Amino acid sequence: METYYAVIFTSQRTEKDGAGYAKMAEVMDSLAQKQPGFIRVESVRDAEGKGITVSYWKTLEAIQAWKENAKHLVAQQFGKENWYTQYHVEICQVMKEYSFTK
Amino acid sequence: METYYAVIFTSQRTEKDGAGYAKMAEVMDSLAQKQPGFIRVESVRDAEGKGITVSYWKTLEAIQAWKENAKHLVAQQFGKENWYTQYHVEICQVMKEYSFTK
Repeated sequence: METYYAVIFTSQRTEKDGAGYAKMAEVMDSLAQKQPGFIRVESVRDAEGKGITVSYWKTLEAIQAWKENAKHLVAQQFGKENWYTQYHVEICQVMKEYSFTK
Repeated sequence: METYYAVIFTSQRTEKDGAGYAKMAEVMDSLAQKQPGFIRVESVRDAEGKGITVSYWKTLEAIQAWKENAKHLVAQQFGKENWYTQYHVEICQVMKEYSFTK
């Protein structure tokens, strides 16, 4: 298995959406997918505003570059000010994977 | 940072719930928390049945022991037969973490 990395982003949304959260999330999603080293992203948010997003990357440098992307930095700032009451990030190396499809 | 591990479980639920999914999920959750090496679990499922659960463990041996737990094996079999159309598992080593609280 080729080495790759996962970024686990667990978050709790505020109730306010006026500042354009959905639009920004869409733009960031699309921007992330154009970053060098991006593999894929999985995202779920429930009705209570709790969310887990896992993005997969080829290298740690790719993760760092995305974290420092200028537009993403703006979104991160908006996130802290408006959209999240809390979040937690773990950067991980994937060691093993398997799947099941019916 | 002490080394620890994350198991990312991304799944799509079937529509049927008759076979006791919610109850089994609750029992498994409680059982996992009693396993040696368990740290914590985060879980989100949206209205379309897509879910991400991330469990955190102190060692790879703890993850393996939970995977092979007899009651958990029964739940896994039920899961494949009844509750999931697909799932994907990644076992990861956490390299870095940070968080934000408002």
